[in-house]
Order: sequence, then C-alpha cells, then structure tokens
Amino acid sequence: MKRNYPLSKVYGLLEPGPVVLITTAHKGRANVMTLSWQTMMEFEPPLVGMVLSAANFSFAALKTSKECVINIPTVELAEAVVGCGNTSGRTLDKFAAFDLTARPARLVAPPLIAECYANLECRVRDTRLVTDYNFFILEVLKAWIDPARKQPHTLHHLGKGRFVAGGKAITLASKKK
Amino acid sequence: MKRNYPLSKVYGLLEPGPVVLITTAHKGRANVMTLSWQTMMEFEPPLVGMVLSAANFSFAALKTSKECVINIPTVELAEAVVGCGNTSGRTLDKFAAFDLTARPARLVAPPLIAECYANLECRVRDTRLVTDYNFFILEVLKAWIDPARKQPHTLHHLGKGRFVAGGKAITLASKKK
Repeated sequence: MKRNYPLSKVYGLLEPGPVVLITTAHKGRANVMTLSWQTMMEFEPPLVGMVLSAANFSFAALKTSKECVINIPTVELAEAVVGCGNTSGRTLDKFAAFDLTARPARLVAPPLIAECYANLECRVRDTRLVTDYNFFILEVLKAWIDPARKQPHTLHHLGKGRFVAGGKAITLASKKK
Repeated sequence: MKRNYPLSKVYGLLEPGPVVLITTAHKGRANVMTLSWQTMMEFEPPLVGMVLSAANFSFAALKTSKECVINIPTVELAEAVVGCGNTSGRTLDKFAAFDLTARPARLVAPPLIAECYANLECRVRDTRLVTDYNFFILEVLKAWIDPARKQPHTLHHLGKGRFVAGGKAITLASKKK
C-alpha cells in the first residue's frame, strides 16, 4: 500500500540519480521503459528534466499525451529494469513479460508500477529542447511512496549492465536542503 | 596521477547521479560549489545538463566565462562536499578552507580538484533555458580519471545532509550502453 508523499520532498527521491522506469500511455496502450538521464530542476512544484531518446517507442507517447509516470525501482527489480531497457514496446507487452503490475494513477493516464517503491505522476511542462536534445521538462503533480520501505536500495547505472545498489547511509550536519 | 579518459565512456561517470563539485574561474579567482542536479544528455561528445541556481556565487562565473570543471568526489571527501555546499565563495576561499588542491586544467581556465577521482573539463554549449530554469547545457571537452581507483564510492544525496555511498556492484547481461 502506497501513501501520498509531499511534493516538497520529491527531490530526495530523484537527486541521488536512481535508474527509473517511465510509464506512458498511447492509444489506450501502456508501455514502460528504462531510463537514467534525468535531473531535478526545481524543488516545488518539483520539476524534472529528462532525456527520452526519439529512437524509443515511448517518445511518441510522451510527446503526444504529455503525460508519464516516473516509477523508482529497487535492486529486487534489477532483471525487469534491464529487460525493459533491452526490449521495445513496439513488439512486446513489457508488463506481462517482466511481471510488472500496472495500477491506475490519480491524475494521469499512464499507470503506476505497483512493484516500484515510489511513483511520480508527471505532466510535460516545457518542450523547447525536445527537437534538439530529446529533453522534456516535467512537473510532478502527485507522488506516492511505500512507507514500509525505510531504506530502499535504488539502482545506479554505470553502463553496459553494470550497476551499484544499496550503499551505506551517511548523515552530516548541513543547512541545505 | 590522473590519466586521460575516453569521452565515449564519460556517461558512466555521471549517469549514476553522483554529487559533484563544480569549479569555476572569474576575474582571476577560482571557486568551487557542490551540486547534484545534473544529467547526461548525449553520449559523444558528452553533453551534460546542469541546474546551477542564480543564487550561487558560481552562477555569474559560469554565465560569463562559459567554462567549468565537473569534479567527482568520493566518500572520503564528504566533509568537504558538505562544507562547499554550505558556504559561499563570496566570502571564503573554499580550496583553503576544505583542503582542496587546485591543479591546472588543459583546455579551460577553472582548475581541476586533485583529490577528486575524475574531472571533466566543460564548456557551456546552450544557454536557452538559463533565464527560466538556471539550466546550462555543457559539452565535456576533456576527461581525466585516476586509474588506481577501481570502484570509487561516489556520494548520492538524499537531502539535508543525508547521503548513500559505496553500494554493492551488480552486473547483468545487457545489449545497451
């Protein structure tokens, strides 16, 4: 069971650079892809910049529908993460192929992935750099988190199937967000 | 001793979302700040998108000089990372205050930080989104790495001084970069 998560805290989910699963919906069909070229751009409302290559099947869905969900997986989903990154929604139902459960989002058409510990419902806000860089600026409209997952081990891609996950927690005194 | 690092491999340094130290130079004076709102945007030549808030002393230096170095620290530098994030170059020589060693870069004026395991010499390539989002697109011109550091434990910020570092390495078969 997920609970609502304050938009003011969303930056702490994406700032560490986790691999994410992006869900889209287009012509009544949902799809999911793997991505890790994203950055926070504003705290609140949370803005996220994301490069989604035009070579991907999800590109047209995002460009047309202007909606997506950023789902944040943990290390338990590593096989599905790589699977979704190595296949195309053109020819495969990735939800079925990788045992991912689609659940309805509240404010957007693309589904939440139930197995991911956090889900961010997003709407495209700025497309000025899409033509030149495939770069979308998204606004996070609603965020969900699994309160039972206290220290989620997110995946961080190093290239060619290599990841690190589950580092040691450190806390230092800081005045900054 | 650092060695030259192929530009084609730079994405693997920044894609996992490490906290970075940005060095700039302005009116003959170098400065350093902490940042983790960056993303890869292209493989080669490597393009990096980065939000550097106009509230920071480094903003004017980057906007005017159009050059910076992205230095990637590891967990051993955690105190300096937080220190550089909580102070301003307006009033402090952060290199002296946090025991960071400035070394000349090859192609840009801002210095490399010797203690960081990798350094990326960058030039600003696109400023279209600076006014609205403080978002700079940088091209990495030259990259340096310490070949002795086989599995560097980069820092990943969770907010308010909390970090994770040094996760477990995982490798899965993947066709993708």
